[in-house]
Amino acid sequence: MQKDLFQGIWPAMLTPVKPNGEPDSRQIQKLVEALIREGADGLYLLGTTGMGPLLSERQRRSVCEWTVEAADKRVPIMAHVGSMTTQSSVALARDAAQAGADAISAVGPIYYQQNIDSVFAHYRSIGSVCELPFFPYHFAASSRLTFSPQQFSEKLLALPHVAGIKYTSLDLYEMGLLHGICGERVRIFSGADELFCHAALSGAVGAIGSYYNLWVRECKRVRKAFLKGNVNAARRFMPAFQHAISVTVHDMWGFFRKALAMKFDVDIGDTIAPLTSGKNVWRESEVSDLFELIENASTI
Amino acid sequence: MQKDLFQGIWPAMLTPVKPNGEPDSRQIQKLVEALIREGADGLYLLGTTGMGPLLSERQRRSVCEWTVEAADKRVPIMAHVGSMTTQSSVALARDAAQAGADAISAVGPIYYQQNIDSVFAHYRSIGSVCELPFFPYHFAASSRLTFSPQQFSEKLLALPHVAGIKYTSLDLYEMGLLHGICGERVRIFSGADELFCHAALSGAVGAIGSYYNLWVRECKRVRKAFLKGNVNAARRFMPAFQHAISVTVHDMWGFFRKALAMKFDVDIGDTIAPLTSGKNVWRESEVSDLFELIENASTI
Amino acid sequence: MQKDLFQGIWPAMLTPVKPNGEPDSRQIQKLVEALIREGADGLYLLGTTGMGPLLSERQRRSVCEWTVEAADKRVPIMAHVGSMTTQSSVALARDAAQAGADAISAVGPIYYQQNIDSVFAHYRSIGSVCELPFFPYHFAASSRLTFSPQQFSEKLLALPHVAGIKYTSLDLYEMGLLHGICGERVRIFSGADELFCHAALSGAVGAIGSYYNLWVRECKRVRKAFLKGNVNAARRFMPAFQHAISVTVHDMWGFFRKALAMKFDVDIGDTIAPLTSGKNVWRESEVSDLFELIENASTI
Amino acid sequence: MQKDLFQGIWPAMLTPVKPNGEPDSRQIQKLVEALIREGADGLYLLGTTGMGPLLSERQRRSVCEWTVEAADKRVPIMAHVGSMTTQSSVALARDAAQAGADAISAVGPIYYQQNIDSVFAHYRSIGSVCELPFFPYHFAASSRLTFSPQQFSEKLLALPHVAGIKYTSLDLYEMGLLHGICGERVRIFSGADELFCHAALSGAVGAIGSYYNLWVRECKRVRKAFLKGNVNAARRFMPAFQHAISVTVHDMWGFFRKALAMKFDVDIGDTIAPLTSGKNVWRESEVSDLFELIENASTI
Repeated sequence: MQKDLFQGIWPAMLTPVKPNGEPDSRQIQKLVEALIREGADGLYLLGTTGMGPLLSERQRRSVCEWTVEAADKRVPIMAHVGSMTTQSSVALARDAAQAGADAISAVGPIYYQQNIDSVFAHYRSIGSVCELPFFPYHFAASSRLTFSPQQFSEKLLALPHVAGIKYTSLDLYEMGLLHGICGERVRIFSGADELFCHAALSGAVGAIGSYYNLWVRECKRVRKAFLKGNVNAARRFMPAFQHAISVTVHDMWGFFRKALAMKFDVDIGDTIAPLTSGKNVWRESEVSDLFELIENASTI
Repeated sequence: MQKDLFQGIWPAMLTPVKPNGEPDSRQIQKLVEALIREGADGLYLLGTTGMGPLLSERQRRSVCEWTVEAADKRVPIMAHVGSMTTQSSVALARDAAQAGADAISAVGPIYYQQNIDSVFAHYRSIGSVCELPFFPYHFAASSRLTFSPQQFSEKLLALPHVAGIKYTSLDLYEMGLLHGICGERVRIFSGADELFCHAALSGAVGAIGSYYNLWVRECKRVRKAFLKGNVNAARRFMPAFQHAISVTVHDMWGFFRKALAMKFDVDIGDTIAPLTSGKNVWRESEVSDLFELIENASTI
Repeated sequence: MQKDLFQGIWPAMLTPVKPNGEPDSRQIQKLVEALIREGADGLYLLGTTGMGPLLSERQRRSVCEWTVEAADKRVPIMAHVGSMTTQSSVALARDAAQAGADAISAVGPIYYQQNIDSVFAHYRSIGSVCELPFFPYHFAASSRLTFSPQQFSEKLLALPHVAGIKYTSLDLYEMGLLHGICGERVRIFSGADELFCHAALSGAVGAIGSYYNLWVRECKRVRKAFLKGNVNAARRFMPAFQHAISVTVHDMWGFFRKALAMKFDVDIGDTIAPLTSGKNVWRESEVSDLFELIENASTI
Repeated sequence: MQKDLFQGIWPAMLTPVKPNGEPDSRQIQKLVEALIREGADGLYLLGTTGMGPLLSERQRRSVCEWTVEAADKRVPIMAHVGSMTTQSSVALARDAAQAGADAISAVGPIYYQQNIDSVFAHYRSIGSVCELPFFPYHFAASSRLTFSPQQFSEKLLALPHVAGIKYTSLDLYEMGLLHGICGERVRIFSGADELFCHAALSGAVGAIGSYYNLWVRECKRVRKAFLKGNVNAARRFMPAFQHAISVTVHDMWGFFRKALAMKFDVDIGDTIAPLTSGKNVWRESEVSDLFELIENASTI
């Protein structure tokens, strides 16, 4: 596996489901095709956006297999295996390896958050189960623990197979300190869509996020231009993108359902409770307006 | 069902497990016997302390059945059915009703916390699945949402079969406001062990908590004396109890393993990862000293 | 000075001001008279409620002198001397001693909050300036620092002339731990009006707060009954009192202006900017209703 | 006044004081000279770093006059006039105008934080007192209030003479939303030194901060290169700069005392209590190492 696989814009892929709540292989296939066509540098499966924690092990295995097959080695696949129990996360990691994923990722303990050692014991069990590169998923808004970048970095570097991190936080100072300590040994993917260009200045080599299900082409174009020196492209795009996020994030899945149907003819179906989404509340014109805004703002 | 069942000191019962991770029916039986003998007013099963969210639906059904059988109608049983998905919580609620529980309880959405409406949609699905009295479990430290007591109360009172609440927060001002609005329609159990007497002044009719696995007799004695007018008993006991909590809560399960073995000859076994506990780190004398402290402080 | 002076219900006295912004000696005199007549166990001057931090050193000296004179040794006086600079706080402490106050109190650093050592260096300078008993004012909502009760207690006990603390926080677990460590050496006054009875169970010997400007008689009656064993009096009163607080605290000074005019014929005047209060927005009937609520709830 | 004056790197100037606590005109003069020589685009006086809130009105007037005189129109001067009372802030604003400052700035209410309306009433009084461009200072870490960017922007745009904002927060999403709403009408200076390049992507036209007292030349060089397309310069510099901040910020004034003495032969003197700084604890080699780090990292 070349290290360069792990960079760029990766959609945190939505998981289309059928009316009966089962993952929908046909729509998944269509979505994978659309995202690769739009230029995704990789696919992140079954994370928060992909409702991984709400699906069974069997369902998650299927989604992983279908996606690997549909992607057909055109882009790398990272499977999120985080779950309520360490045992289940370990089983999912094995499944992901067998299914042919290129990397695994896992959020920290979801409900039982005791201290930094219990977090890393959980990560250690997951990272050691297979040979795949491991990207812990640090989700600041979901964590009630605090630790210094120094402490965190030391424990991170000691994890088996650790190759990087999905770092979801607005705090780019902390990210920069982490990068300063870990350097190239930890490839940082920024999980805050609203700051994906900013994050490059704190060491991020890529971005994993929900909104790239819709706008991977546009975000990739801007990010590439930015990294080549077109700072104004990023200065123009980011506030527009932040606006689009701010008016949709309160009903993100509802917005995506409408927007992906319009843009890619993909039906993502309903969310799985307790996750809710307003059904059919997005008017076509509202969504079109946002398409136009982002299209214009991303023109180089 | 008499309403008066729902009051007093209820242990949030630990779930003893065998070395292979399966719930241990024999130890559960022994623990139920000990807690009833010590005077528990009811038993709260499979909550945070009881590792409910880390057990499978099958395991939770078994624990519920075994406890109901062991209690043999001597004390009421409330089964916590909160889970990652609403569907699973609903299934667990049905199981609890079939197993003969006297009430159900459920924590709000665990990972996907969107807004107050999604929280109550989750509760509504659970509350409507069976005829048992329903006690939502408001766990402040686990929630990232904020809402006013007024908003919360209105939505609470509209829930099907709502009979009360397990309210776990240090904020007894908020609890008092909730009580002021809901009155007798919502029986408040305080979930903060460290303030169980204080909570009575904000409307609580009972307390559900971890430390009553060990000290239900002592806490009940003090609470009763307090409610009958012995304020000094509470003034003397609460700081001692708070001290005991403060020196054990960082390794609560590890402490309970040692302490319950010593006091009731019950082996609660290991925690289920990612929940961790220091194994065998508690010296007998440390635990004895706390036993003595609490015994002395609770003498009326 | 007898130690028993420092207990009971102490109004955090409002500072009436004239239209030109100067403290109003005549209204202060009337307010002192009213509060003593109503049974105040002591008076706390120039704190947050008394707008101390918004007044000049000269103005604060005058208010202190007038109050001492008006009280005429019938009740003890504690002067808050906290200020932006340590130097000014030290000068104010000297003034308070000269004016005849019985104790001093000071909030921690107001704007520059670096670490626990800088907080206690500030306290140390103030406590050592005169022989008066010193009561640091720990105001949780105004502090951005966190420290353990153990750390805090050790530093507290090492302060010169420390006699107690004004502890303003809803966290009665922390208060209880503090009390457990410090015992009788630190007399705790609870600063959270909404929990004044609860606080007695965590070691508080008294309460200092804004609402006792209006309801010292009622609160004292309930607290006394509670401490003598009438727990139901407290259970009935506290939720009513909490309600009264919750509907007035957003415009506390505006409410007090109207209510004190009605009840004691005292004109507290306008607030000093940036502190604001709605002018004349409280209708007489609204205020009367609250008077009635509290009167009824406090009947023993 | 040309609008372009308000951009670039502005040191939040330290205020050198003499052993007796009085501002030191001679050292101020030397510091102004050094900062202009190093390329400062403007000077921000008497803010948090400059200990404005700890100095008297008289002292602040003097500092303002001396700086204006020393700068001699070579760079624009913005005077921070925030204070405990609105009245004092208003007087300071008048003083700043008379002294010849080019703009004023003010932090929101320092201790009495009631609601967004009271914050803006305070700003309104200050902004209307003179004709100078007004830059409110939004200091997230010091504020306990929350408001949406939409609410905040509307109130901001309605302020008299508002020309921009000093926005001190790590939240560059919020900054971007603010910029998206206000556009060119509000010139944003980022107050988070550690993100000064990042902030340009959320609409910031400049940066005001403490560390530019030491490294204005280096930061300006990097920022300029970045804005012209040298993204790698920023990617290389920012983590190094963040590191330098992280190892000094716990004793910022102590570090600056040593570092400014070494670099500019300026003696900033002691801090004013309750602000503390370790005296003489920084070894020359520690400081030199940081000089070298920043020098190397800022080489284009």
